[in-house]
Amino acid sequence: MKIITVNNKQELNELTGEMLIGLMLSKQNRINIAITAGSTPKGVYSYMAPRIRNNDAFNNVHYYNFDEIPSTDSNFIGITMRDLEDMYLNPAQISTSRFHHLNGDNYKEQDEKIKSIGGLDAILLGIGKDSHYCGNLPGTTKFEDETVKVDAKGELKKKISGHFENQSLVPDYWITMGPRSIMAAKKLILIATGSEKAEAIWHLVKGPVDNQYPASVLKLHPDLTVIADKKAMKEVNK
Amino acid sequence: MKIITVNNKQELNELTGEMLIGLMLSKQNRINIAITAGSTPKGVYSYMAPRIRNNDAFNNVHYYNFDEIPSTDSNFIGITMRDLEDMYLNPAQISTSRFHHLNGDNYKEQDEKIKSIGGLDAILLGIGKDSHYCGNLPGTTKFEDETVKVDAKGELKKKISGHFENQSLVPDYWITMGPRSIMAAKKLILIATGSEKAEAIWHLVKGPVDNQYPASVLKLHPDLTVIADKKAMKEVNK
Amino acid sequence: MKIITVNNKQELNELTGEMLIGLMLSKQNRINIAITAGSTPKGVYSYMAPRIRNNDAFNNVHYYNFDEIPSTDSNFIGITMRDLEDMYLNPAQISTSRFHHLNGDNYKEQDEKIKSIGGLDAILLGIGKDSHYCGNLPGTTKFEDETVKVDAKGELKKKISGHFENQSLVPDYWITMGPRSIMAAKKLILIATGSEKAEAIWHLVKGPVDNQYPASVLKLHPDLTVIADKKAMKEVNK
Amino acid sequence: MKIITVNNKQELNELTGEMLIGLMLSKQNRINIAITAGSTPKGVYSYMAPRIRNNDAFNNVHYYNFDEIPSTDSNFIGITMRDLEDMYLNPAQISTSRFHHLNGDNYKEQDEKIKSIGGLDAILLGIGKDSHYCGNLPGTTKFEDETVKVDAKGELKKKISGHFENQSLVPDYWITMGPRSIMAAKKLILIATGSEKAEAIWHLVKGPVDNQYPASVLKLHPDLTVIADKKAMKEVNK
Repeated sequence: MKIITVNNKQELNELTGEMLIGLMLSKQNRINIAITAGSTPKGVYSYMAPRIRNNDAFNNVHYYNFDEIPSTDSNFIGITMRDLEDMYLNPAQISTSRFHHLNGDNYKEQDEKIKSIGGLDAILLGIGKDSHYCGNLPGTTKFEDETVKVDAKGELKKKISGHFENQSLVPDYWITMGPRSIMAAKKLILIATGSEKAEAIWHLVKGPVDNQYPASVLKLHPDLTVIADKKAMKEVNK
Repeated sequence: MKIITVNNKQELNELTGEMLIGLMLSKQNRINIAITAGSTPKGVYSYMAPRIRNNDAFNNVHYYNFDEIPSTDSNFIGITMRDLEDMYLNPAQISTSRFHHLNGDNYKEQDEKIKSIGGLDAILLGIGKDSHYCGNLPGTTKFEDETVKVDAKGELKKKISGHFENQSLVPDYWITMGPRSIMAAKKLILIATGSEKAEAIWHLVKGPVDNQYPASVLKLHPDLTVIADKKAMKEVNK
Repeated sequence: MKIITVNNKQELNELTGEMLIGLMLSKQNRINIAITAGSTPKGVYSYMAPRIRNNDAFNNVHYYNFDEIPSTDSNFIGITMRDLEDMYLNPAQISTSRFHHLNGDNYKEQDEKIKSIGGLDAILLGIGKDSHYCGNLPGTTKFEDETVKVDAKGELKKKISGHFENQSLVPDYWITMGPRSIMAAKKLILIATGSEKAEAIWHLVKGPVDNQYPASVLKLHPDLTVIADKKAMKEVNK
Repeated sequence: MKIITVNNKQELNELTGEMLIGLMLSKQNRINIAITAGSTPKGVYSYMAPRIRNNDAFNNVHYYNFDEIPSTDSNFIGITMRDLEDMYLNPAQISTSRFHHLNGDNYKEQDEKIKSIGGLDAILLGIGKDSHYCGNLPGTTKFEDETVKVDAKGELKKKISGHFENQSLVPDYWITMGPRSIMAAKKLILIATGSEKAEAIWHLVKGPVDNQYPASVLKLHPDLTVIADKKAMKEVNK
């Protein structure tokens, strides 16, 4: 595990953007990267989009999402996809032929599909206050799970309801690549900012591997880079 | 995970030997490999030793052990080291400058030492009937452990007593790289033969990640190759 | 450049076979290897074929040829392809879907095709007494050439005529990946035996980069391994 | 070869800086990079220095120079070293223990030293109007040369005299890693701006491999990235 502590959000955005751009440019051929939605990467994508847009040097990059919250309205593309489009895919003008959308219709083929393209070269991950990453919330997936549909009823349904204005559209499941699928990637990059993530980062860096803190397992990956600001690192550095 | 099923022990010895020799020859520069003692690799080393001996092409290879059972007689070099010397290091005439002995005196520096040489390129592992690998027996180490000294009293002491003719030499501890240290290697190769390993292989390949079956965590490594004969694979293939 | 000197042809066959088998097993995903026809690799393929045949572990390997001598009889598949089928592809029972035949019909697309599959992971090369490799004979291709059709008239036609019993079938051209295409591979492995290759090996290892000795340019590749017996190394070691 | 065309010098500075930063962050362990002096990289280093300075994440990076113009005054450190210190090493606050200075005293050990640290992971190169790279000027080194001392008399001496205010300090030799040493690196990144480089870039990308245009040989490297502005690309794109 390599830990990069930055002073603030802007430094995190720049350094993460530089790391991803460097990775994309480092290969002569196709490179496969799964990227995260959520609020933390927003500034990363703002940094990257104008650099990627209209630059043929990045045409070797294929993008993947690793989770999706669909809607009961089947015409809606999904919360993750909508956010990725708004934050990155549209401003960076990524051709749809280079974005591979994991969703409720194709999730059963996800792991085979990833294997057939040679595996994911990297995944950009965020982390939740509750130590979740991707759609791996405490109590939903097990470490040995590959890509799965997670039943979301009761309390779990509430957790995703905030993504919807119209509550009749909240689905009773979501899709996520499981821990085993995520750990199979060649490189993991996890970003975190703010003191509300400090406990989750402690579990990731120093805590026991425990499914109640899903991200705690990521410490076992041979090529994990954590980029976090000082606030998010405060429990680790105590 | 890549699973290679072979017909018998001889095929396993040859294929594993070829895989290791290929790996050693594949790099222009230094390569760092940790290798296992125990009975399973005996034939692998018999295959390799005459090919390695007196061949300068292999002088870039540095060897490591990943566990050690010392003796209360401090003049004795340790069970693992003795076995590796007998099975491989002496017949292959490996210079002592290229074997780096993990033992009770230096285990606290092991993880830093491994990092400073750029990490282990590969580890050759065996597996026990109880799903242990290295000195990670059920109930001894936790997934987040790096290299540790394991207290061995009572039942645990019995498990290592068979290695000693003179029972007064049995120590009350052993040394092992923990799960976190093993998972940090770039490549893992695990070998198994015989139906008595079939259950352990099932837990490795298909079972839940559960510390009662230590090797079950290895399924989360992005570059694990399992080489097993049909008997060892019989539970997986059922 | 890494030079591996072996005592005799049998050692060369085994070590080269082990290196290739190790390489094939080293990747979890697709691996692309171009292999040579000619007499030198015969023993290498004899070593490999029974190990590859019926072993699913090698189904990730895709094979390529790097040159071809067609025939004026368009029903004939080509000298290189015929030799590779006889020496390796048939005895190893390689599925035709995993052999990608470069020939007179498709050579113009070869370099783009190679790029689209992520490049060649390795090329197994032989070397001629005249320092040729692939179809790059002195006076035919230039260092900057990619895959080309070589006009073969007069003296050049004589050089390939020995491959044909019926001289009316000798073509007046051949196909070869040029120096630039060969140098673009990630790894080069070149094998040589016998004192008649000693001068060519000297030019490869120690001589000036000079198009009169085509293989002399290979010394500039960052990952070249030469496996040669003592006879072939005698000029280098003088 | 991967060609990245940018609109102007600022884009080149940023993209090259991002590529290098991404490369530096991509490895968990030591990474070895040789960097160029000259005027082209100035903006690259201005971009990088504030990001590298005081950031422990970059402590795994070891730096090398690939050529040096000494002075007849042995107290002077050398033109290349002075420029690298001014442009990058001092503003980025690189510890002297992580800069490895090639000079007139140690050049004979350079190639062995590079091999012993596992090879160079990358070299950042510039290119001259005359197609020189490093100290490989037309008529000085041959493609098969490793690190050498170049005799600089007459016309050659004039070429370096501009670096000195006091002409009595101009030496009659310089040091450079030769083509063979440069080609041995895992990755080459070459930057160029301005129409006065357009002819040299044409020779690099499209021209014959010809020692009169030293950089023309770089097209044979399996992992070369050229970053150039539109003006430098104008002959290639014609």
